[in-house]
Amino acid sequence: MNKTHFKLNPDRLFPVDPKARAFARELYTTVKDLPIISPHGHTDPAWFAENTPFGNATELLLVPDHYVLRMLYSQGIAMEDLGVAPVGERSDADPRKAWRLFAQNYFLFKGTPSQMWLDHVFTEVFGLTERLDARTADAHYDHITAALQTPEFRPRAILERFNVGFLATTEGALDPLHHHDKIMADGWGDRVVTTFRPDDVLDASRPDFKSNVEKLGSITNEDTTRWDGYLNALRNRRAFFKAHGATATDHGHPTANTADLDKSAAASLFEKCLTRAASADEHELFRAQMLTEMAGMSLDDGLVMQLHPGVSRSHNPKLHERFGPDKGADIPVAANFVDGLKPLLNKYGNAAELTLILFTLDETTYSRELAPLAGHYPCLRLGPPWWFNDSPEGMMRFRRQVTETAGFYNTVGFNDDTRALLSIPARHDVARRMDCRFLAELVAEGRLEDDEAFDLIVDLTTTLVTNAYRLNDRQPVSSQAAE
Amino acid sequence: MNKTHFKLNPDRLFPVDPKARAFARELYTTVKDLPIISPHGHTDPAWFAENTPFGNATELLLVPDHYVLRMLYSQGIAMEDLGVAPVGERSDADPRKAWRLFAQNYFLFKGTPSQMWLDHVFTEVFGLTERLDARTADAHYDHITAALQTPEFRPRAILERFNVGFLATTEGALDPLHHHDKIMADGWGDRVVTTFRPDDVLDASRPDFKSNVEKLGSITNEDTTRWDGYLNALRNRRAFFKAHGATATDHGHPTANTADLDKSAAASLFEKCLTRAASADEHELFRAQMLTEMAGMSLDDGLVMQLHPGVSRSHNPKLHERFGPDKGADIPVAANFVDGLKPLLNKYGNAAELTLILFTLDETTYSRELAPLAGHYPCLRLGPPWWFNDSPEGMMRFRRQVTETAGFYNTVGFNDDTRALLSIPARHDVARRMDCRFLAELVAEGRLEDDEAFDLIVDLTTTLVTNAYRLNDRQPVSSQAAE
Amino acid sequence: MNKTHFKLNPDRLFPVDPKARAFARELYTTVKDLPIISPHGHTDPAWFAENTPFGNATELLLVPDHYVLRMLYSQGIAMEDLGVAPVGERSDADPRKAWRLFAQNYFLFKGTPSQMWLDHVFTEVFGLTERLDARTADAHYDHITAALQTPEFRPRAILERFNVGFLATTEGALDPLHHHDKIMADGWGDRVVTTFRPDDVLDASRPDFKSNVEKLGSITNEDTTRWDGYLNALRNRRAFFKAHGATATDHGHPTANTADLDKSAAASLFEKCLTRAASADEHELFRAQMLTEMAGMSLDDGLVMQLHPGVSRSHNPKLHERFGPDKGADIPVAANFVDGLKPLLNKYGNAAELTLILFTLDETTYSRELAPLAGHYPCLRLGPPWWFNDSPEGMMRFRRQVTETAGFYNTVGFNDDTRALLSIPARHDVARRMDCRFLAELVAEGRLEDDEAFDLIVDLTTTLVTNAYRLNDRQPVSSQAAE
Repeated sequence: MNKTHFKLNPDRLFPVDPKARAFARELYTTVKDLPIISPHGHTDPAWFAENTPFGNATELLLVPDHYVLRMLYSQGIAMEDLGVAPVGERSDADPRKAWRLFAQNYFLFKGTPSQMWLDHVFTEVFGLTERLDARTADAHYDHITAALQTPEFRPRAILERFNVGFLATTEGALDPLHHHDKIMADGWGDRVVTTFRPDDVLDASRPDFKSNVEKLGSITNEDTTRWDGYLNALRNRRAFFKAHGATATDHGHPTANTADLDKSAAASLFEKCLTRAASADEHELFRAQMLTEMAGMSLDDGLVMQLHPGVSRSHNPKLHERFGPDKGADIPVAANFVDGLKPLLNKYGNAAELTLILFTLDETTYSRELAPLAGHYPCLRLGPPWWFNDSPEGMMRFRRQVTETAGFYNTVGFNDDTRALLSIPARHDVARRMDCRFLAELVAEGRLEDDEAFDLIVDLTTTLVTNAYRLNDRQPVSSQAAE
Repeated sequence: MNKTHFKLNPDRLFPVDPKARAFARELYTTVKDLPIISPHGHTDPAWFAENTPFGNATELLLVPDHYVLRMLYSQGIAMEDLGVAPVGERSDADPRKAWRLFAQNYFLFKGTPSQMWLDHVFTEVFGLTERLDARTADAHYDHITAALQTPEFRPRAILERFNVGFLATTEGALDPLHHHDKIMADGWGDRVVTTFRPDDVLDASRPDFKSNVEKLGSITNEDTTRWDGYLNALRNRRAFFKAHGATATDHGHPTANTADLDKSAAASLFEKCLTRAASADEHELFRAQMLTEMAGMSLDDGLVMQLHPGVSRSHNPKLHERFGPDKGADIPVAANFVDGLKPLLNKYGNAAELTLILFTLDETTYSRELAPLAGHYPCLRLGPPWWFNDSPEGMMRFRRQVTETAGFYNTVGFNDDTRALLSIPARHDVARRMDCRFLAELVAEGRLEDDEAFDLIVDLTTTLVTNAYRLNDRQPVSSQAAE
Repeated sequence: MNKTHFKLNPDRLFPVDPKARAFARELYTTVKDLPIISPHGHTDPAWFAENTPFGNATELLLVPDHYVLRMLYSQGIAMEDLGVAPVGERSDADPRKAWRLFAQNYFLFKGTPSQMWLDHVFTEVFGLTERLDARTADAHYDHITAALQTPEFRPRAILERFNVGFLATTEGALDPLHHHDKIMADGWGDRVVTTFRPDDVLDASRPDFKSNVEKLGSITNEDTTRWDGYLNALRNRRAFFKAHGATATDHGHPTANTADLDKSAAASLFEKCLTRAASADEHELFRAQMLTEMAGMSLDDGLVMQLHPGVSRSHNPKLHERFGPDKGADIPVAANFVDGLKPLLNKYGNAAELTLILFTLDETTYSRELAPLAGHYPCLRLGPPWWFNDSPEGMMRFRRQVTETAGFYNTVGFNDDTRALLSIPARHDVARRMDCRFLAELVAEGRLEDDEAFDLIVDLTTTLVTNAYRLNDRQPVSSQAAE
């Protein structure tokens, strides 16, 4: 008969060899309580602005988690039965029944990071002591749902409780940032900031591109029907985001392609894109050009640039039509950074004042492209393993394939990149443990001295992220924000 | 001086750490004697129909094994000297001399799965206690050749002795399945079945395509000069194979490309392919279209669909001309499942009643494409590491790169995929050991509980394969077949 | 406080498990003192011809090491400050100041092979006992610079001291090989030889191609404006290099593409390339054709052929313009050996008398392409992990991804491939240790017997390289050369 009692293994993810494990544990002790610095993620700023309680377990932990939805869907479970509402509708699923269905199928997540994160949430955040399965489904649901109504589980209390020292959300270029205004007004502006994500006004393949660019013009009082006005409007929004604490931009392009057109070619392309007469290749060229423009603006205003390329978004059109984006149907594609980034790098690659952080879902680029590029160009840094690769095995592959060519100091610490607030401590804990493991293995193999490992684990946990995202350069954005 | 005595290490392939090793051994104890379920392979049904003894050691173990031939050939050994006959000729090599040549060069296989499989055959199947080398060549040859003449080494006895509970062979669409008739008539029809492999009538680039399609028409009484008649004939053959126990189809295409043409475009393309005026691109488009057609028919008749794409077959034209196919000159190529499968998935991807099992020789697709696809689409499952990757390292790479995104339950257990009957127990043993190792490592690292590992090892050994290949849905196909 | 004393860990790179580690140590003992055989590298033959002392620490260890330069540059350190001179200028940097800058930033190399090699040089070659950092910078600089003026640190003494039994340098096709004449005249011709690297007269995309081909004609008294004369001139130079001890050629092409044009098409293409009217595609086709021509000549003259494809050279045009090539700005690109090599293999692939050694920077080709190709074609062998992958992790990936399909005997031992003379013992030591580790792990996992491992480690260290590069076939090239 299977066990029901459940407790996280305190040595989880450490090396199996007893000596190396003991050393990893020692390293971990020095960083486990350091503040969480989360420079890239997708939590909802409304939570921190309004600080209202979350709803029930299903609403918080099941419906918004595309990792969980995708796995359940892959085994023939209907989205509707999980409480996911079709676009424009409200779910009529009973949240408790949806939770039961999830619990019955929780075994599907064995060996996945989702289980690791959720078990951490269940035990460390909610104090549950039994595994989630069909027998415990109701008890877990009731316990979690009740806890969510208490003050300790309000969004700001969660940030306090888990020692989240810095958290960046991500907003589109047209967002008025009202939530961030409120956050600043309430004195949380040095802790919770925005990130400038302008895909909606850079990607001319979107059906709403033209209207977005019009809105961009009216918000900024620029003539965005002209190339110069459009660029000015973007500068204007970048400054606006920076004033709301942003230290970075983020770009979610289908590829890593960049371009460096001359001004008149860029202006013509922009105008063609606005008319909707542009081809798919022209849309791609425009996105490519705009990455280079963004790099140039970053050199001017100091915002760190992040690039997340290489995903076939909403690969499943029927699912997308019915349920919208972010339901687990995004699939990575092969990437080419060497040719793709060349125009941008030719122009700005030698500028040490620029920071361009690269992410990938195509792990073949780690040793072949990304480590050699970041191990040469002053402007480049490598982001941590992303999305599907934000996992123990993914982290080991990253360190093993990147470190020997790019070193540790061309990397930027960890990103949780999550919408799931409660999983933030779990994710950072996994990252810290895996870094301890990697360093402990290097020490055990005589590739690193023990005192070097103690220095490095602090750098990997807090120093690199602080430096790469320029967190020490921030000006307090409001008087209340100063502690 | 080197050792001569030889014995398999009972802990082979388990983790090196003593505690993890002990746990792997415990796991292995629970599954090592479970029946072998072999849902995909290339043994000759004539063996089981006729049950005649095999010939000599060379004929059985050397000449038909393309893994062995390729390695010896790569070191400059002539095919002729190994007993391989040129096309249309008989080998005039002395089988004993060929065996000696193999034995002298057996050291070439150190560290390869071929050695692991062959050593298993020598020791476990034939009871030999010395290593194969120049000194023991004759003794091994005589011992094996003599054993093959005894009743215990007849094909059906081998299935009994090694507890092979289910074995699927693979036959072309035009095969009359006479051997399977005999197998059924003799009461072995619930144990040995066929698989429908229609490449010969789907691949218009083959010189015999037109004549194959004509034969297809005459066998089925359909007008296969017309698109409708051709599709009907295929449905007819699928039913015929199903009546001979098939639960699955198999498709060996150069790529994973699929298409979804409208009916008239498909019909025109088919007609052009029949005239031989079609271009290579049109042949590819026709294969792509036919994969989607096969998926549609699978939804109707319930046959599980297997796709084995991405091999440059017979890369060596001189060797192919002289010795024909399957001599070790097939080379994998880069694959693209994300774009390739999209037309089929757009049409049928959300159908949980369809099962499409994907195989690859391009391991870069594991974490980038296959795990994300199978971790989302209800119809997709991932086949085990295939061919060159059916090996200890290949299996570890598969589990480590696939599990975190697709979980265990989007995989389908092991396939031996072999022509080499005697290696079947060896191959399944390696797979079971490697799964024990992987699970033991997860437990040692605190990523899985021990009781979960005991459940999982049974699922990986028998449950997943039984479900994925729908083996419990089979109707006994003849009264004799019922035990 | 950090440690200052430093000593290499005698068990570095061995497995962590105590039993496996002990066995690796035993294996290592049997090969650590075997002579170094270095069949491919880029040391300067002038060193061995003139045997003059090296200059200072910066000149020897910092300025010429593109691995070190690239990492420092990636962190915003200027080339000028490291003592690198712009093209056509002399560096005006103080070498001691450049060394201090390097020392202050030596922490950047933690976890990289550069640190491993340099620490080996500091401790084993120079007897230093403290880590390099800001505090020790001057002491290291003075100690090394002083040592370099002593007789023990002259180039030939270094070869003696480190038991370098064979060393090949690499020269362009037009090189008069005067240094090698001197080396031969001094009786070192059986130990230090050249390698024929004809990229300068095969790559028509180079601005100096036409003038190089003219020089080739005047050196050889052939009419190199005609295809036949050009081929004769190449044969002539190959013979000249062979007479200077060369056993191999080397080819550094952007891709692995080969071609097999008929004679008149090849002749026309050559003539077009000479006029500079050729397109980039025609340049690529000409390089492809010339690889096949070189293979044919290798069949005639017995020179082993090496192919190092797949690098985007000088990816950073501004850096290249200012500082020239080999400053750390070369970036790998994706490779395709299966299609690329086909024309050459169709023509010569079955010739066991040809040896074509393949290298790659695209590790995805290890299991997908290179191991299957080398595990079949008699002419193919796999070179060791190259450049960025000449590292502990890179070596493990190579062995783990290649061995199961190609075995050990389609590999060719280690290449140090270096310009850095003092790092040669360090690099071979890392390779020997990693091979010991790999074999010890196979033994620990029951995949290899211990006596087999003892045989294999010698083969991997000396036998395979000697055979693959045909070092035993060499004729003493001058009477003095005979020992």
